[in-house]
Amino acid sequence: MFFQFIDILGTIAFAISGALMAMGKRMDPFGVLIIAFVTAVGGGTLRDVMIGIEPVSWMKNMTFVYVIIGSAVFAVVFKKQINYLRKSLFLFDTIGIALYTVVGVETGLVAGLHPVICIAMGTMTACFGGVLRDILCNDIPVIFREEIYATACILGGFTYFLLLQFFADRHILFVIVALVVITVRLVAVRFKVSLPSLYKSEDNKQ
Amino acid sequence: MFFQFIDILGTIAFAISGALMAMGKRMDPFGVLIIAFVTAVGGGTLRDVMIGIEPVSWMKNMTFVYVIIGSAVFAVVFKKQINYLRKSLFLFDTIGIALYTVVGVETGLVAGLHPVICIAMGTMTACFGGVLRDILCNDIPVIFREEIYATACILGGFTYFLLLQFFADRHILFVIVALVVITVRLVAVRFKVSLPSLYKSEDNKQ
Amino acid sequence: MFFQFIDILGTIAFAISGALMAMGKRMDPFGVLIIAFVTAVGGGTLRDVMIGIEPVSWMKNMTFVYVIIGSAVFAVVFKKQINYLRKSLFLFDTIGIALYTVVGVETGLVAGLHPVICIAMGTMTACFGGVLRDILCNDIPVIFREEIYATACILGGFTYFLLLQFFADRHILFVIVALVVITVRLVAVRFKVSLPSLYKSEDNKQ
Repeated sequence: MFFQFIDILGTIAFAISGALMAMGKRMDPFGVLIIAFVTAVGGGTLRDVMIGIEPVSWMKNMTFVYVIIGSAVFAVVFKKQINYLRKSLFLFDTIGIALYTVVGVETGLVAGLHPVICIAMGTMTACFGGVLRDILCNDIPVIFREEIYATACILGGFTYFLLLQFFADRHILFVIVALVVITVRLVAVRFKVSLPSLYKSEDNKQ
Repeated sequence: MFFQFIDILGTIAFAISGALMAMGKRMDPFGVLIIAFVTAVGGGTLRDVMIGIEPVSWMKNMTFVYVIIGSAVFAVVFKKQINYLRKSLFLFDTIGIALYTVVGVETGLVAGLHPVICIAMGTMTACFGGVLRDILCNDIPVIFREEIYATACILGGFTYFLLLQFFADRHILFVIVALVVITVRLVAVRFKVSLPSLYKSEDNKQ
Repeated sequence: MFFQFIDILGTIAFAISGALMAMGKRMDPFGVLIIAFVTAVGGGTLRDVMIGIEPVSWMKNMTFVYVIIGSAVFAVVFKKQINYLRKSLFLFDTIGIALYTVVGVETGLVAGLHPVICIAMGTMTACFGGVLRDILCNDIPVIFREEIYATACILGGFTYFLLLQFFADRHILFVIVALVVITVRLVAVRFKVSLPSLYKSEDNKQ
């Protein structure tokens, strides 16, 4: 069904983005598999746990597990092209947050949560996996490097509820929201909409 | 009711402390909103999830959501006075852990947990939001910079159970515990009770 | 019963490993207690929450709480021998992941989860506490420094299901799996199977 299809597409995008970063860190196959897993299911896991959907979705549906393992294996097999692949990390990550925003908002609606909470669930589903990936890979969390990252998801969520009444068939709505998230992020990055200076003297960590 | 009042006060204090730090990091309004949210609900979310209260409290009560958004907007509006406001970050943070310690211990009691676990819940409710705020803002977690931070909450929790039998009316007890936490931390900071040296040569991260 | 015995042994090992690192960071007794707690219950908490066992195991069984407090006190009492003790941090940590891998896999089986998920639960139970310990202590997560860390747990989990059919009595199986994890890690460390270079120029954090 269309919705599960979007969920799986997002899973593939994030699993590959996680595998790419893990290989960029020269992790071994198992390390790559773990980071791919965390990146792909991190956000959804937090969402399910906070809503009370337990065991969390991916633990009850082996499809996701196999998709993630397959994506990681794919990334490992093409290890040679790693330098070329790394350029596509940004692309896979962007597709991932777009699709997961839709998945998160929908899950919130099904659980009967308030629209504002649903938008929060969508943003969380989309951003948390990447944050965990970066923390485990010892990078500065993407959400902190370019906060337009989460902003794109929030705007996507708003779009969802703004247009909800106009779409009896949600399939088109899903696509529109995903495109809004992707567009906002691409435009933001294209026009260098990002944090001016990350570190200041009191940042002992630097 | 008095208890919810304390919870909301703590939420405001933490939302503002989160917004202040996010603005200090020059995040955009959305980034500020996210950090304010995480700081305010992080600890309570972990507590609820571990106890099994799902969907977690703040997701079922829009009051908290509006209070957090309001606090963040307030902080953004007064962006100009940021340098002045940042000085009060410590104050809001201290008020926050004091009130959240009470909230956490109470929640544990209502769930019928052992006193020791309740103290742990109170400490977690109080400290975890700030830890997440610091991790997302790429600062050294406050709990690590000055562990008297958590110590104050633990002592507050002990006070709660030491005096529990003497108070039929818990209102006064709540206030006393909060004051204990605030006093312990203020005294500790005033007399420089803190970690002598954080980093040692083997800390590759520095 | 044997299974709980293994769980408690792992708890002691991790509580001590956490206390040792916290003292190495010159934290005060309370800081040491908190890190000991997080290291010992972090992995199991994540596992229980994802499966839906709430309140999480250790919150319903004071035995673990007392064991952790006892282990932390033990570590604090022997603070003088810290330099000697720190050498044993690696040992305690290795014993911990070995025992927790068994505990995690078993918990997954009892919850009726798919073998692959059970292996993930075992790896998570074993590795997450150490990761939290390192993040709170501002160290590079162990799972990132030497990914053979998690690899050992995954191999241990595979061993469990490979041999499951041959053991009516699981006691021996538990021991074999634990030995596999310990052996894999010791051999890996002995023969320097680890990441070639952790940091690359684009790692702004360094």
